[in-house]
Formats: sequence, C-alpha cells, structure tokens
Amino acid sequence: MLSLTELRTRINEGRLAPRQAVAEVQAAIAERDPIIGAIVSSDPEPIVPEEGPLAGIAVGIKDIIDTAHLPTQMGSPIYRGWQPRADAAIVSRLRSLGAVPLVKTATTAFAGLDPAATVNPHDHGHTPGGSSSGTAAAVAAGMLPLALGTQTGGSVIRPAAFCGVAAIKASFRLLPTVGVKTFSWALDTLGLFGASIPDIARALALIADRPEIDLADDAPRASRIGLCLQGFAGEADPDAAEALSRAARAAEAAGAIVTDLTLPDAFARAWELHPIIQDFEARQALAWEYANHREALPILLGPQLDRAQALTAAQYDAARREAHHARRQLKDVFGEFDAILTYSAPGRAPRGLTSTGDARFNRLWTLMGVPCVNLPVPGDGLPLGVQIIARFGRDGQALAVARSIETALARG
Amino acid sequence: MLSLTELRTRINEGRLAPRQAVAEVQAAIAERDPIIGAIVSSDPEPIVPEEGPLAGIAVGIKDIIDTAHLPTQMGSPIYRGWQPRADAAIVSRLRSLGAVPLVKTATTAFAGLDPAATVNPHDHGHTPGGSSSGTAAAVAAGMLPLALGTQTGGSVIRPAAFCGVAAIKASFRLLPTVGVKTFSWALDTLGLFGASIPDIARALALIADRPEIDLADDAPRASRIGLCLQGFAGEADPDAAEALSRAARAAEAAGAIVTDLTLPDAFARAWELHPIIQDFEARQALAWEYANHREALPILLGPQLDRAQALTAAQYDAARREAHHARRQLKDVFGEFDAILTYSAPGRAPRGLTSTGDARFNRLWTLMGVPCVNLPVPGDGLPLGVQIIARFGRDGQALAVARSIETALARG
Repeated sequence: MLSLTELRTRINEGRLAPRQAVAEVQAAIAERDPIIGAIVSSDPEPIVPEEGPLAGIAVGIKDIIDTAHLPTQMGSPIYRGWQPRADAAIVSRLRSLGAVPLVKTATTAFAGLDPAATVNPHDHGHTPGGSSSGTAAAVAAGMLPLALGTQTGGSVIRPAAFCGVAAIKASFRLLPTVGVKTFSWALDTLGLFGASIPDIARALALIADRPEIDLADDAPRASRIGLCLQGFAGEADPDAAEALSRAARAAEAAGAIVTDLTLPDAFARAWELHPIIQDFEARQALAWEYANHREALPILLGPQLDRAQALTAAQYDAARREAHHARRQLKDVFGEFDAILTYSAPGRAPRGLTSTGDARFNRLWTLMGVPCVNLPVPGDGLPLGVQIIARFGRDGQALAVARSIETALARG
Repeated sequence: MLSLTELRTRINEGRLAPRQAVAEVQAAIAERDPIIGAIVSSDPEPIVPEEGPLAGIAVGIKDIIDTAHLPTQMGSPIYRGWQPRADAAIVSRLRSLGAVPLVKTATTAFAGLDPAATVNPHDHGHTPGGSSSGTAAAVAAGMLPLALGTQTGGSVIRPAAFCGVAAIKASFRLLPTVGVKTFSWALDTLGLFGASIPDIARALALIADRPEIDLADDAPRASRIGLCLQGFAGEADPDAAEALSRAARAAEAAGAIVTDLTLPDAFARAWELHPIIQDFEARQALAWEYANHREALPILLGPQLDRAQALTAAQYDAARREAHHARRQLKDVFGEFDAILTYSAPGRAPRGLTSTGDARFNRLWTLMGVPCVNLPVPGDGLPLGVQIIARFGRDGQALAVARSIETALARG
C-alpha cells in the first residue's frame, strides 16, 4: 500500500516532487485498476500544487461526493455523466491543503446495498464490501494513499475490514457532508481510508483542522478498553473472534486494561431501530429518483424504498427517541472506558460479488455518531479487522488506541 | 392574498379546476411581479395534477432549493443558469401531494445578508426582508397561495413580518433540507409562507405527513403563554412593542394565561454565539465558491466569509456546547409554558433596499431548533408581526396558539 506519511516525508525532504508522487499513483492505477474496478473517472491532467501539508497526495473521492472537475454519478445510470457545479466542502478542503482529488471511486448505487463493479484486491472472487467499495479496494491495491468514503450503516468500516486497510468513520458532522449525496441525514458520515493508522490520523487532523487528533504520543498509558461482542447483533465467525482476541491481547501488551463490556438493553433497541431512521429519511432523500426513475433503481434499493413508503412519522419519532436515549447512556459507558474494542465485520469478505456483506456490527455506532476506526489484524488469507470506538468527538483517542494496538500487533 | 384553504374548498366543491387555479396565479404574477421582483424563473407550461390534497396549489420555491425543471441560481452570478439534475426532497413531496412548483422566488445570495432585487409590496421603497425575500413578497402581493423559504438566522420570520404574511419556520429537520443549498447545517431550516395560520397549518400537516399539526380544534383551552422581550437582543421599536401588547391581550381574550418570561443567562450566551456556529459552517459550506469565485461574492457575504476564515474549531466547539446547554434549559421553560410570545422583528420593514433588516429576535430560536410562527398583527402602515414559539417538535401547538390569537385579533 502507499503510505501517506512516507510519501510526505520524501516530499518534505526533497526526494520526491509532488508531481512525481501523483504520477506514480496514476501509473499504479493504469496498471492495476483494469482488474480491480475501483476507479470510475479520473482527472487526466490534474493541477498538482507544490505547497501544502498534503501536496503530492492523490485522493480518491467516493462517487456520491460532488466534484466540479469530474462527473459525480452516484453509482447509478440516473446520474450518468452528471457534472455538479461545485466541489463538495471536503473536496475544497483537500484542495486547500495541497491534495489532488485525482479520481472518483466506485460506489454502490446511492451508497445502498447493491454491489458496485469492484472486486476485492486480495481475492477477485470476493466482495470488497460496500458501499465505499472503490475507496477501500483502491487503497488496498496500492493505487491511492488516501481516499474518502461515507457510512450510513457500515459503509466505511466494513469495506475497510474486508480489504485490509485502516479507516476512520469520523464523529458525526466532524467532516462536512455538504455536497455529499444524502441517504439519511441523521446517519450519513464521512470517513477516511489509508494504509495505516498514522496515515489516517495525519489526514484527519489536517482535514478537520484539529491538530490534536494527530498527537501520536497522546495514546493513553493504561487505557481502559471495553471488549464488546455486540451479542444483540448475533455471533461473529470464529476467525473474526480469534482476531478480536489477538487485538485484545495486543492492547494488554501495550499496557491497556481490557475488560468485558456488555451493553445495556437500550443499545439493542437502538441497534434494531437504525433501519427505520435510515429508510424513513432515504425515502425523502431519494424521493425524486423514486418518483421519476423507479425502474432504474437496482434490485436491492428499489424494493427497500418500496417498503420504506409504509413507514410512519410515529415510527420514526419513536426510533429517534430510543437513539437519543442510547446516546445519553453511551456517555456513561465512556465514563468507565476510554475505548470500545469490537468486531468490524462478522468475518472475512464473503465469497461472491452479489452482496457487499453485513453491516450488523457497524449500525449501532453510526447511529450513536461516535468515531469508529478499522484496524487490520495481520494474518493469512483474506483480511480481518477490528473496530476501535471512542466517545463522540474523541476521534484522536480512538486513533491513539488503535495505533497502540497496531504497534503491538506488528511486534507480534 | 390568495388563501390556500379557500382555493382548496372551491376545488373540492368543483367550482374551480386545478388548472384554472394555477392560471389565476400565473395571471397575478404577470400583472404584479414586474414591480415587485419576487420571481426569478417560472415554468411556462406546468403539469397540473387533477388529484391530490394540494392539487391546484401553485407554490413558490426559494431559489436555493433545487428543482429539476427550473434553474436554481442561489441569487448569485456564480450559479447563473445552473440546472440541477433532481428536485429537492421537499419539492418532490409537494409534487406527490398534487401541488405545482410553479416558480422560483428571489433569494439573497446564498441566503446571506445582501439584498435581493425584490421590493416590499406594501411600500416599494422598503425592504421585504431577507433572505426569503421573493417568497414573502410573492405571498404578500397575492401572487402565490404557498411558498417555501429557509431560515439560518431570521430568514423566514423576518420577511414574513415585514411583508405581513403568516409563516412557520418548522422544527429543525421536520422538513428535509436535502437539495437545499447549505449555509449552516446546524441551523438551516425550511419554512412555509401563506395568507393565514390555517393555510400554513394545512400545508405543513400535509407536507410533513403529520395530520395532527392541522387539528384546528386542538388549541389549548387555557394555554400558558410566556411573554418574552428578549432583552439580551436589545429593545424593539415602540410600535412593535405595541403590537406585541395587542397580541398578548388578544391571547388573554382567547382564554390564555399570559405571564412575563425572562430567560436565564444561558440563552443570552447562546444568542451571542449563534454567528460563530453559522459562520464556521458557512466557511466550509461555501468553500468552493470562496476559493474559486471570491470576487463574485456580494459586498456583505464576501467580507463575512473573509472574517470566518479566522474562526477556530475550539470556538465552534464551545459555541456548540453552550447551544446544547441552552437547548436543555429550554425544555424546562416549556415545562411551564405552552408557547412563547415575542417579537418577530425589531419593528416595521426599514426604509431603503440596501439592508434586509435585523435578525436579532430570531437567531436564538433558530439555534434552539424550535418551531416559530409569524402572525401578522392587523393595523395601519407597513405590517407588524409577532412570533409564537413552541417546544421542539410541537409545530402544531405553535400554530394552534397562533390561530387562537389570530382569531381574537380579527374580532378586534
């Protein structure tokens, strides 16, 4: 994979020109993407700034995020060739840091559940996950040092786990979603994908303009970690459980105190109600597409929106109340723990390309709005990842804990 | 003014065809808008549904709200001729109810403070208010029975008061802002303008699909009303104070118990910090426009965004915490009161067209996310309005109280 930190070091030391760094990315894409299918459009002659803390860093932009210089096609024929007027807020921010929004990455249609035409770089017969399919696969295949995704259910953490890359779904609204196609305004959240935890910590600190997120030495000495199996979401595969145990032991080796955490019932209820909030809002957010292009919606999203027509405001209000209640209780949980360690996904990327896998270990946390990090756990076969979660707004803490586990796992 | 309720009654009784109702609106616009300047584009051959609870109702759409059939120009040359692909969620919803999104109404640039080219229908030398300038003026001039606006500071309630029309800024996110140009995602809120409180109650109940909003008989018998002068925001003009007194006496005549309400200091602090939240988000939301078209931004918005560049994440976080704190305290206030009665604006529409007036009596309530209704107080000269505010999510209650005062005022 391409390390953002390493690229920036070489650029800072004058050993690599930003233009050259971008050219290397272009070459990697030309070589590998014909097989992976992660890129849907690219800027053939990008403007490459010489200055800026992200100068020389080519970024992949999930194709539900508006770009003024490249089409934004939402993974749907309804938006084929669609060219927005303006860049999304986060794309403007990347440019102001010197980064190059070089390519748009494949997304499932409207960031829903229907697979995109991307394969898992580790085994082309397996899904890369979704909905940020191209984003995760491009980083995993060493085609990009940084890429943007979004999560409404599990669309950042799941593909990151399946593809074996580091990723963070940021705290709700830490990163601006202006110019990002809406599926559910109470849930949609931006995330960053990179080769390692330090890479995404560096990137998030810069993009959010919050340097404290990247204070590498700030990892809590004896952090209190709650090991959470999310029993309400069912069981995970044995090798996912094994990876979680290894991560827990690595955390202890790094000085953390790891304790089992069983969440109160309020969280099971909130978890169960996530789809009501999501689909009640999706029905409104995608009302134009549904009313005018129902026949062009794919085979999972179409019926999902059909069913959503029956949801009532009362159901939605009740679900929002439960979520609010759980969010309050989560503050108490984070009084006892600095971070939660749990599954990123039920297992390795499933075989086949007709499903993007299951978001059941991600939904609750998206609804809670808290920062979630996927940390790949090294091993044989298709990648496995674990999820590190911190209190709302403590993205730096989630990353610091993830980094300490990453370091301990690398030591073996 | 054109009464939505009356039009719908005539249509229901077969005395008016939907097509004819829309044609009458078109004729009124052709006659009056050359002087008022409220309309920026219109559908010359609208599709007029025969069925639906809003069939025959022509609606004006503030020109920061996306429409698939009409340009969306944001009141700015940067978006001259810009044609979105999709309708905003609320426009789709209007269509599904049978309404006709007939025209786009003039907005200040990006819903900021720079005046649009609209005059006050009651005196063409006075501002109609902003930023929903065309929306308020078109309804006031009898050109539309219903129109959409948005409020980030005071952009619904202020122009409604200056133009003498009924309006509601709905509870935060009750109406979907998908497809509405963002200024501040924590504040931007949709609102409806009409000829009377029953008109906007009917419209809101239908659009939000919440029939309980329009239960006319549900006005609290002896509602407890807090009369609030918002001293932290300065004084109002004597005739605004007189209008507020008249409204309070009318409320009492309608059976309400009106008590003076002085808000705790937390609200003054939240009120003061509103611009920090607004401008910190606006800097991100308008980053593309600022980076690429700074010279095309108007004389108030350009420098506002210049200044916003200096705001820090720490200032923003602190402001958000204060707002959160005030929102909690407001729940206690609404334990004692069913509604708050206060100023809609500091006075009548100011003379001149270089300012849209002052939002100081509106900002706090936008930040609190609570429903706010403008009720015109009948009298001589330029219009005056009062503001009725209820607990978050109790839009129907704010409207019911406003209706009872409206009725009592009409009795004299």
